[in-house]
Amino acid sequence: MPEELTLRPFFWRATRLFPETEVVSRTHDGIDRYTYADFGDRVRRLAAALADLGVTSGDRVGTLGWNTHRHLEAYYAVPLSGAQLHTVNLLLQDDNVEYIVNDAADDVLIVDRDAVAILDRLWDRIEGVREVVVMDDTVPKTEADLPLSAFEDLIADTDPIASWPPLSEDDPAGMCYTSGTTGKPKGVEYTHKMLYAHAMMVMTPAALNVAEDDVVMPVVPMFHVNSWEFPYAVTMAGAKQVYPGPSPDPADLVNLIESEEVTLTAGVPTVWIDVLDHLDEHGGDLSSLERIIVGGSAAPREVMRRYEDEYEVTIEHAWGMTETMSIGSVSRPTSGTATDGREAALDKRAKQGLLSPGLEMQVVGDDGESVAWDGEAFGELLVRGPTVVGEYYNRPEANETDFVEADDGGSRWLRTGDIATVDEDGYIEVVDRAKDVIKSGGEWISSIELENALMAHSDIAEAVVIAAPHERWQERPLAFVVPKAGCEIDVESVRTFLQEEFPRWWLPDDVQIREEIPKTATGKFDKKTLRETIEEPELPYAPGDGGGQ
Amino acid sequence: MPEELTLRPFFWRATRLFPETEVVSRTHDGIDRYTYADFGDRVRRLAAALADLGVTSGDRVGTLGWNTHRHLEAYYAVPLSGAQLHTVNLLLQDDNVEYIVNDAADDVLIVDRDAVAILDRLWDRIEGVREVVVMDDTVPKTEADLPLSAFEDLIADTDPIASWPPLSEDDPAGMCYTSGTTGKPKGVEYTHKMLYAHAMMVMTPAALNVAEDDVVMPVVPMFHVNSWEFPYAVTMAGAKQVYPGPSPDPADLVNLIESEEVTLTAGVPTVWIDVLDHLDEHGGDLSSLERIIVGGSAAPREVMRRYEDEYEVTIEHAWGMTETMSIGSVSRPTSGTATDGREAALDKRAKQGLLSPGLEMQVVGDDGESVAWDGEAFGELLVRGPTVVGEYYNRPEANETDFVEADDGGSRWLRTGDIATVDEDGYIEVVDRAKDVIKSGGEWISSIELENALMAHSDIAEAVVIAAPHERWQERPLAFVVPKAGCEIDVESVRTFLQEEFPRWWLPDDVQIREEIPKTATGKFDKKTLRETIEEPELPYAPGDGGGQ
Repeated sequence: MPEELTLRPFFWRATRLFPETEVVSRTHDGIDRYTYADFGDRVRRLAAALADLGVTSGDRVGTLGWNTHRHLEAYYAVPLSGAQLHTVNLLLQDDNVEYIVNDAADDVLIVDRDAVAILDRLWDRIEGVREVVVMDDTVPKTEADLPLSAFEDLIADTDPIASWPPLSEDDPAGMCYTSGTTGKPKGVEYTHKMLYAHAMMVMTPAALNVAEDDVVMPVVPMFHVNSWEFPYAVTMAGAKQVYPGPSPDPADLVNLIESEEVTLTAGVPTVWIDVLDHLDEHGGDLSSLERIIVGGSAAPREVMRRYEDEYEVTIEHAWGMTETMSIGSVSRPTSGTATDGREAALDKRAKQGLLSPGLEMQVVGDDGESVAWDGEAFGELLVRGPTVVGEYYNRPEANETDFVEADDGGSRWLRTGDIATVDEDGYIEVVDRAKDVIKSGGEWISSIELENALMAHSDIAEAVVIAAPHERWQERPLAFVVPKAGCEIDVESVRTFLQEEFPRWWLPDDVQIREEIPKTATGKFDKKTLRETIEEPELPYAPGDGGGQ
Repeated sequence: MPEELTLRPFFWRATRLFPETEVVSRTHDGIDRYTYADFGDRVRRLAAALADLGVTSGDRVGTLGWNTHRHLEAYYAVPLSGAQLHTVNLLLQDDNVEYIVNDAADDVLIVDRDAVAILDRLWDRIEGVREVVVMDDTVPKTEADLPLSAFEDLIADTDPIASWPPLSEDDPAGMCYTSGTTGKPKGVEYTHKMLYAHAMMVMTPAALNVAEDDVVMPVVPMFHVNSWEFPYAVTMAGAKQVYPGPSPDPADLVNLIESEEVTLTAGVPTVWIDVLDHLDEHGGDLSSLERIIVGGSAAPREVMRRYEDEYEVTIEHAWGMTETMSIGSVSRPTSGTATDGREAALDKRAKQGLLSPGLEMQVVGDDGESVAWDGEAFGELLVRGPTVVGEYYNRPEANETDFVEADDGGSRWLRTGDIATVDEDGYIEVVDRAKDVIKSGGEWISSIELENALMAHSDIAEAVVIAAPHERWQERPLAFVVPKAGCEIDVESVRTFLQEEFPRWWLPDDVQIREEIPKTATGKFDKKTLRETIEEPELPYAPGDGGGQ
């Protein structure tokens, strides 16, 4: 048999073919800079240190860390040792960290100094963790009796291991929990084979197009679906990588782009909106930067336009989820669509795009039948492929509800929970989450389309639309808006504003003005909490009310 | 479990996301042009027709065909039906075709009209083939009682199949025999997983960098290691593909590049030398063309330079073999080397390049130890990876001799039989075949380096250097040269010419002048036959003879 599909050749290629290429990391203590040769040595030392701590095949090593070189080292040393890397979001509330670490039964944790306080508070509720390695030179003082050791001490005290243990492509190598905007977070596991296949797909021009001469700065957190696979794909490509470290602010990001000549970066839209605000105020040199990949939510058209016009930077939308190992589609015009002018190109870029190589999809209506690819009809997006998980960890009930058996030679479709249209060119556009779509009188209303329209209103800073229960129509849209500083919002005028774009039965039955909108740990609008605040809302408007039209 | 790694998503992506993109094919009857939507319909019909012929999972379907759209259809219909596609070189001598078809035990053959005559001659020696499909509208008359049917009749008479059977990633999907410059051809089998992994690797910028907006013309034959994987990689990318059809001449290739606006093409160097000659005489427009991938042997520097200077076309060397599913390395300057000027860039491009993502390598001397990566020390190139075969079909003795067990967590290394150096930047340069390298007094002499030097001589058209047996020195170099038309060659002056470049003990002990040099079916110098013509050659010169220096 040929060699199995594991992470070993990723490590081999960077350290042997590109030993002088740099890895740069912003840390608590300044900029750290070294080469892939140094990286290789430190990964081998970390693997030896983990073996000294008793980490062995089948163990699970959790991390709570920012995007740094030490976290990157764990990305390799843990799975190459036959153990499983479980990335945990260090911004989660204590209860969630407790639930996730205990559910995964992590054996060892590797954590940023910022995360030690969380463990200190939680320690008597954490069950199986026998060692906590702090990604630092020293360990901080704690209240609880934590079994702490310092990352730098450990690797200084060991010799690099000479060779890796045999690995199987079906061995679990990674693990991540869904962000859990509804219900408890669900764990998904990634095998070596899945990581191999996904990272190779990410490298292709059809996906993120990562080349050796790129300088890549992943801003999307390493605790969030493997930082969209950049730590694996970029290493295999042999490209320089730049990690922005603990809670980077816009100035940090602009400084790193300037000083390291970053060509490709990625993160959620709010990051790049904040960077634009920073640039407006302080200026900055983005001349090296070519592309920003955004995902998680949609970047406003105006932001895309300004990056293009003012900085010659292209924003490309990507779509994905924990269950698809991040990137599952990328949006840019194809040779067929690129000739249709700038606005048409922006239309394409503003969508979630074309499914990435290796995947297959369907968009199905309530009846389970595929909807037309006409850019209008919508339904739930189903995907499958070697980089789509086939089950959740320890969640038999979700394994029943979240997958659909295939009847065409494939195995199972993942129900993404995303409501999408597909246009004539095959571009996916996510119009809502299944749980957020508003089902009114047998028709569906997209909460996201209403929100996007509301946020384009000159007086509105934030807007969210949820389904309010309704006796006759089943559900009706209810909007919450936060005015921009110094602005007043008039409900009638907002409804009139929306009428320009939507049929009257889409208009919210009320627009409530709030000072702020609750958000989840990952910065998304927390619709679950909002829904809990309204049980039987009074809705002043009825469907079809049109202000005289 | 996630979906298996099979060819199904390749077919899905092209037919669903790029239904209007063209596939263009030169055939015996002119240019055929259709879309991926048409392709999808015809592949489904062919699969149904094959099922009607009794082809089922585990069957082997051989092809003897040129690069055409019908051959492409077989590339998909056969493996997607669960059967195995076995590509056979239709330029082989009858004995080889007989051996290969019988050794593989092909059940059905799909052949070009040009190959029917071969089968007609061989039919009573072919064992298990029960049906021969001719890639044409009609079937030709034959002497033997061949069970012929016409491809176009078959697919016109069936309905497209609605869905594919379940496929396993470990199912054999492809098969190809080595070209057999020594000994009998050896069969290697490719599973769905191997084809998936290799095609994705080929798409990456680190390998051939195939994008949706490319127009790709594979000139390298589809019977030769899957046309270097282009039929799979380009389909997945959704790019337009152009097939040059039966024995294309330089005018055909230039016409297709012009009319179809080809951006990327690939083939052995002699093809592109002939194209250059044609352009010199007749002119031609290569303005769409960006890159030519060459492999099989090295392109002369002067040819690389002329394509760059006169046509703005970059030639990139690739290395690979049947056992590595073609592409295993590609040569282009990296960001670290690109700044060193044009000649340095050409130096890099003239090598076999950087190992492709997913592979690992070693270069080992006679003692089995790794040699230095200094561009000087040479040894045998060993490679391993998910796209390197782990065994030969039905050849237990070769499975013993051609692989080396790994002792570092990997499984087995393939002995490539290539003698190579690796430079400080990790670039492989193949300096000889292991069987051709000349072992003289405990040192190695590269026959290829001597041949390249000889072919740079203004009076020499062709040159080959082999090892002559030698009582004292074990082996000594012996050169055979063919003079250019109208030129006379003086042996002394040739030796003096070589002395400028090589140490005296490298100089051939004789230079014999011939009218032609025997060649193999794939156009390589046939050193095996040459060696058989010399048993105890008289060698007029002794090692170190230096013409007075």
